[in-house]
Parts: sequence; C-alpha cells; structure tokens
Amino acid sequence: MLYLVGLGLGDAKDITVKGLEVVRRCRRVYLEAYTSVLTVGKEALEEFYGKELILADRETVEQEADSILKDADVCDVAFLVVGDPFGATTHSDLVLRAVQLGIPYQVIHNASIMNAVGCCGLQLYNFGETVSIVFWTDTWKPESFFDKIKRNRQNGMHTLCLLGKGRKIYEPSRYMSVNQAAEQLLDIIRNRRLQGEEPEITENTICVGLARVGAPDQKIASGTLYQMSTVELGGPLHSMIVTGTMHPLELEMLKLFSVDSSNFENNAFQKTT
Amino acid sequence: MLYLVGLGLGDAKDITVKGLEVVRRCRRVYLEAYTSVLTVGKEALEEFYGKELILADRETVEQEADSILKDADVCDVAFLVVGDPFGATTHSDLVLRAVQLGIPYQVIHNASIMNAVGCCGLQLYNFGETVSIVFWTDTWKPESFFDKIKRNRQNGMHTLCLLGKGRKIYEPSRYMSVNQAAEQLLDIIRNRRLQGEEPEITENTICVGLARVGAPDQKIASGTLYQMSTVELGGPLHSMIVTGTMHPLELEMLKLFSVDSSNFENNAFQKTT
Repeated sequence: MLYLVGLGLGDAKDITVKGLEVVRRCRRVYLEAYTSVLTVGKEALEEFYGKELILADRETVEQEADSILKDADVCDVAFLVVGDPFGATTHSDLVLRAVQLGIPYQVIHNASIMNAVGCCGLQLYNFGETVSIVFWTDTWKPESFFDKIKRNRQNGMHTLCLLGKGRKIYEPSRYMSVNQAAEQLLDIIRNRRLQGEEPEITENTICVGLARVGAPDQKIASGTLYQMSTVELGGPLHSMIVTGTMHPLELEMLKLFSVDSSNFENNAFQKTT
Repeated sequence: MLYLVGLGLGDAKDITVKGLEVVRRCRRVYLEAYTSVLTVGKEALEEFYGKELILADRETVEQEADSILKDADVCDVAFLVVGDPFGATTHSDLVLRAVQLGIPYQVIHNASIMNAVGCCGLQLYNFGETVSIVFWTDTWKPESFFDKIKRNRQNGMHTLCLLGKGRKIYEPSRYMSVNQAAEQLLDIIRNRRLQGEEPEITENTICVGLARVGAPDQKIASGTLYQMSTVELGGPLHSMIVTGTMHPLELEMLKLFSVDSSNFENNAFQKTT
C-alpha cells in the first residue's frame, strides 16, 4: 500500500494519530521536500516518528516514482507531504503511477494553507480562484495574476495569493514575503494607471498578510495593500489575501488583526463593483 | 485558553497528535454537533479521547457562548469541530466573544471538505466560489447556486457544491445525496431551456460525486451530470463538483473514478466557454 500522508502546517505533532500509526509501521518513509516547510527540520520529525525519513525532492518524485513505489504491492510505503497531499501541489503523478502498477493507495488528509487561511475570519466559500505570485526578473514581469485577482474582486470574491518560492528546501531567500508581493501589486497598479486604466484594486484595498499559518508563532495582519508593503511578519512561509466584498462578521474578524484600526473601516467599505 | 480543535473527516484517529494532547488536558470539552458528522459517534470519540464530551448544537453555541467560555481565562476549554474550525462553517462568533472577554484562543487545524476534495485529482486552485445546494420545497425553488456554478464554469473554474442538510446530527434523512443535487440541477437546466436559454451546464457536463471523503469507505464517482442523478454512493455526507476547464492531468485522475469510461473523454472535452 502507498500511503500519502499530510503533515499539516506547524510542527511534528500536527500529523494525525492515524497518520502517525501509518508512518510507524511503514517499511520506507519518504518526505517530500519541495513544496513547503514546517517549522521543524527532518531530524525533529525523525525523532518524533521514530523512523528514518528519505528526502524526496521534485526530481526524485518525478524521475524516481518507480523507486519510491518499489515493492509497495507487498509492503507499506509512506509519502509525507507538508499540508495536505492534495493541497497547493497535488501528487497526481505518483498516484497515477501507483494505479498503473496495480498498487493500492490511501490518502490521509490534513490541514493545508488552502483551508487553514480561514483562521483570519474570511469565509472559505467566498474565495475565487487561487493565484500564485511569482518573482519578477528584469525581463519577465507577468501580470496575469493581477487580472485573476481583479476578476475575483469584481465578482465579490476574495483571492488567496500563494507567494513564489524556490524549489529547494534550503533556499529561504527564495521565499517571497508579503512585503514583496504587495510591492509587485503596487507596481502593476502604477503601470495600469499609466495606461489609463483605473484599477479595481488600489493601494487602499483591504488585504490580509499571513505568516507561518498553523505554527505557534503564526502572524496575521490586515490593512490596506499599501500597509502590506511595510508590515513586519517575520520568516516564511507567507501568503496574502486580497479581499472582495466582506460580510460584517468577516470584517469584525479582520479588525482583530488590523495594522491600524483607525482607517480600517473606511477602506473596507470601498466600492468593489 | 479556548482551543478550537479540528477533528478531520473520518473517525476518532483523524484528530492531530497536538489536538489529542489538548483535548486530554482540557477541563471541559465541547463537541459541535451541527455542521457535519464523522463516521463514528460521540461515545467512540469519548472512549478514544478518554474524556467526556458536551454536545453543543447550533443553539448552544449561539446562545450559550458565555457558558462555553466560562472560566476559560483561568482553565483550558476545547471546542471540537468536525473538519477544520474555519472550514465550511466558521466559528467567528465564538472567537469574537472570547476576544471580547479577554480570553486567549488557539486554533488547531485539520482537513476539511474544502481542501480534502482535492483527492479526486482536480486542483484546488482551479476552484471558484463554493456553493450550497439547498433542498427545494413546493414553494421555494431558488436557482442562484446554478448561476454561480455557471459563472465559475465560464471562467474555467470548478465548483464545489456543498449539499443541503438538516441542522441536527440525528436527522440523516435531511442530508442531500448527489442524486438529489443532480436532479435539482437537471430541473433547472430544463427550466432554462423552456425560457429559451441554452445553459452553460448541460446533462453532459462532467461532474464528480464524493461521499464520506476521508473515511475508509469513501467513494468517488466521475461522469456526466445525468449519470450523477443515478450513481450509487451510499450514506452521507455527499458533495458534488461541477468541473470547469480540465488540465490533462486532472482528466487522467478523474478517469480513475469514472462511472462509464467509454464516453468520458468526449464529454470532458465539451466546449466550456
């Protein structure tokens, strides 16, 4: 059996009881190392699970699926994923390969950033399409995510923005901060104005910055997009939400996290359509 | 401290290790009884946790927040929620009341239907707004969810449909099945045609029916909307997805669950815009 086990978002103890039992009885346990980071390292996980973990980076999973799946028809193999196995990154490739080889699989779910962002008080069913904000280079400055955020907001929907990061686990500098993401959005707004467009999203649009969701030192800050460009949220991982139309209860919750409550309400009731 | 603890979707062992430790040390432990059901009852949870649980239905949470929060400034109280505390139903009211009373709170996340539906292979970031399909009565037949699904599909997005259910945990007959949801959508399509509209969504649109996601007897079936009106998925909870534009990898995954693979591909490549 192949087990795809979600580890949740915080530390070693965010695995489910069921997941932990599976890990402890598997012959081989792989740890997916490329989509996200927990607040603890591989060693802390190994100690808590009482198991040696084999790091599997993107290349391993794509090119060595067959070695991961070796003998999984006669013994148990676990593939551990930070968050949920079908969260921001899916593991369809590995599942499809297992099915081709006649290997049964089971998913042990957990929280992922895709549902845990609900902790800021914005309701998950009011989110539209999720976007990824990628690092710009001197020659490559895509703006397509901006148009998706705009479309969501026109429809009254919030947008979860996943922030670009590097491929390897030990490249912390490649994780994008909320400040950097907000700067890129402000750049796009300036560009659009130069082109004569009055953008749907402005420096006063209410956003939410989230850092290390699910960890003990999680930080949430709400305020204008401009405020997001300077707010101090600490280390990775960061995500950002651009709000759409807010329900009064959503607004009450966001106020708990406001950078500057004095002008919060005015900006929150900006016209969105 | 008030702890909001997600229980996940399957059985008693889907709680996280961290969540279990919290439950075992809390003075009072409430179980929210109105938004969802696990595959096991209160007694099984009590036995596994080694704690007596106090059932809190919707009325209790809304009207008796203060009794739930009593002394939570000096002792630990847990509020257990099937899925994630900020999943399909949020618990903002309880959090806001705690903050007003100066009681600190902590959220222990878990999987919810909002992210676990990713197990069918459709990518979560390609979902638009989530809709609730409610039971029609003779005199009340709202169609607004249909227009939201239509808008998502026009934008290429998938739609997660949460299916209407009763308020009390012991009213299994009030849970809507995928068959019933599909029938209501087919009714709306017939109405729209009578009004001269050629609907974006037809009996041939590819949908996914999901039952008991995260439980050992979970069932997933993909096929046309028409096929969803007769597919046999067993007991609650059910959810349904109406697909938008599919990526080839998403399609490969859905084929694993197809009711009738022979005509699957043709329908999947229907024009969506």
